[in-house]
Amino acid sequence: MAEYSIGLDLGGTNYRAAAIDREGRILERIAGATGAAREAILGEMVTAILRLRDNRRGDELAGIGVALPGFILMEKGLLLKSPNIPSLENFPARDALQARLGVPVILENDANAAALGEKWIGAGRGCDDLVLLTLGTGIGGGIISGGRVLRGSQGMAGEVGHITVNPTGMPCGCGNIGCLEKHASATAIVTMARMLNLGENLTSEEVYKLAAGGSEPARRVFQSMGSALGIGLANLIQIFNFPLYLLSGGVLAAWDLFAPAMFEELSRRSLTYRAAAPRVDKAILGTEAGLMGAAYLPFSVN
Amino acid sequence: MAEYSIGLDLGGTNYRAAAIDREGRILERIAGATGAAREAILGEMVTAILRLRDNRRGDELAGIGVALPGFILMEKGLLLKSPNIPSLENFPARDALQARLGVPVILENDANAAALGEKWIGAGRGCDDLVLLTLGTGIGGGIISGGRVLRGSQGMAGEVGHITVNPTGMPCGCGNIGCLEKHASATAIVTMARMLNLGENLTSEEVYKLAAGGSEPARRVFQSMGSALGIGLANLIQIFNFPLYLLSGGVLAAWDLFAPAMFEELSRRSLTYRAAAPRVDKAILGTEAGLMGAAYLPFSVN
Repeated sequence: MAEYSIGLDLGGTNYRAAAIDREGRILERIAGATGAAREAILGEMVTAILRLRDNRRGDELAGIGVALPGFILMEKGLLLKSPNIPSLENFPARDALQARLGVPVILENDANAAALGEKWIGAGRGCDDLVLLTLGTGIGGGIISGGRVLRGSQGMAGEVGHITVNPTGMPCGCGNIGCLEKHASATAIVTMARMLNLGENLTSEEVYKLAAGGSEPARRVFQSMGSALGIGLANLIQIFNFPLYLLSGGVLAAWDLFAPAMFEELSRRSLTYRAAAPRVDKAILGTEAGLMGAAYLPFSVN
Repeated sequence: MAEYSIGLDLGGTNYRAAAIDREGRILERIAGATGAAREAILGEMVTAILRLRDNRRGDELAGIGVALPGFILMEKGLLLKSPNIPSLENFPARDALQARLGVPVILENDANAAALGEKWIGAGRGCDDLVLLTLGTGIGGGIISGGRVLRGSQGMAGEVGHITVNPTGMPCGCGNIGCLEKHASATAIVTMARMLNLGENLTSEEVYKLAAGGSEPARRVFQSMGSALGIGLANLIQIFNFPLYLLSGGVLAAWDLFAPAMFEELSRRSLTYRAAAPRVDKAILGTEAGLMGAAYLPFSVN
């Protein structure tokens, strides 16, 4: 009797679910759109999970892991705050799912789940201590310490998008000035390109193409972004002395443009980087990391 | 048969040792000057420890913990790098002590030991997740996560004195620009006072007296120091979401002068600080913290 788990990665507009075995092989997968109302969302999740389970009768289901965007109160099994899925805020989602499914359910923040996924079968395989930064519209973070997610008191640990990299830098919606995500995210790239009059409605991909095509101002955008990322990473390296720091997100396509400035800051700013030579590298699971990490949750507690 | 441990806090110029019971009561203490040569240092340590042990015949010695300034390779039981005690660098001190004493010896970095001491019987009693910053000539840090010291791969975790709080700030001997310790240590206070022409050879205590006496420039020194500390702490709070952050060191006497600026930065810069309201407070063990943490080491593994 083969053992498997079901992972579900719930986003604001769609979800992905999969039945996955202990070696990380995807046995079956389902994807769909996410509704807005709480009942619709829960119904879709339950339907997807039951379908995956019904197709594996005779196998043993270790449990269900769900990755969600937002702060999660682990003890209560609920989303405390989630701008992307507001209808689930402060609702005991874990218990509601368990009641309908009759199987243990574990919730996890999506960036934490992505870090766990990379640790399990991604670029962090075999590494029990790592930090993952997801560079997207914002910057999220997941910290794995001693093989487990570092959650902090209220599940808010790893909010590295809002560490200060420039105390007099760009203002942030969080109230701070100079947050990492205001200087090193895809959004920051677009903002900087606009400040340099490269175009009003450019995407970060288009800024990348300009830079790759030789535009000096566009190249400076990525140098500035890499430099800010280097300052943030240097701080993390000084604090953790971990062997591995992973970057993920669409911006990774521009690695060759931002990485030199990033490594220059690391060498200059972190004694621990120079002495301990940790690996700073690309994550490899891409948008699958959260799904894989979600599926790993039931295995990690058994 | 009462159980006790022996802690020894070794500095560059002197040492303190004590026999301490499981409740953290000091049963007997010894202090002395530290020699420079390796053999002299080891001899003094062994003599002090044997004397403490001989006075407790019939009691059970759980083990010996030693706090040292510098990076420690835990597996090898040696000091990798120690500007204060260079003669012990790269020498297998743990095994040498164990061979002479016939008792298990555990080495620990002094800032980590201080954090452990505060967790055991200080301001962090009952708290398994905390960060301690020691504000002295430089700034050291110790991180307790899940009740244990966070060491990192090479024992360099918690080097928070060298996180960047101002990327274009003061240059640091570590190679970086704008390190926390160049903006918020006792040394930084003296440097800033000199820049403001408050006096050429002032100590940080004298700058404090000027500020307490109403000197506006001296007050601004402590505001600047508190602000830099707030930026560094805000980053730590974003990263860890721990319930407790402790400050120690002689500069604490100026708490009323620097704390308002520090808390202002925390409120402004850290969403997690505002949402989770962690305690940011004074440590209470003072210069005894390292000694107490050293004594706790044998108990923490048994």
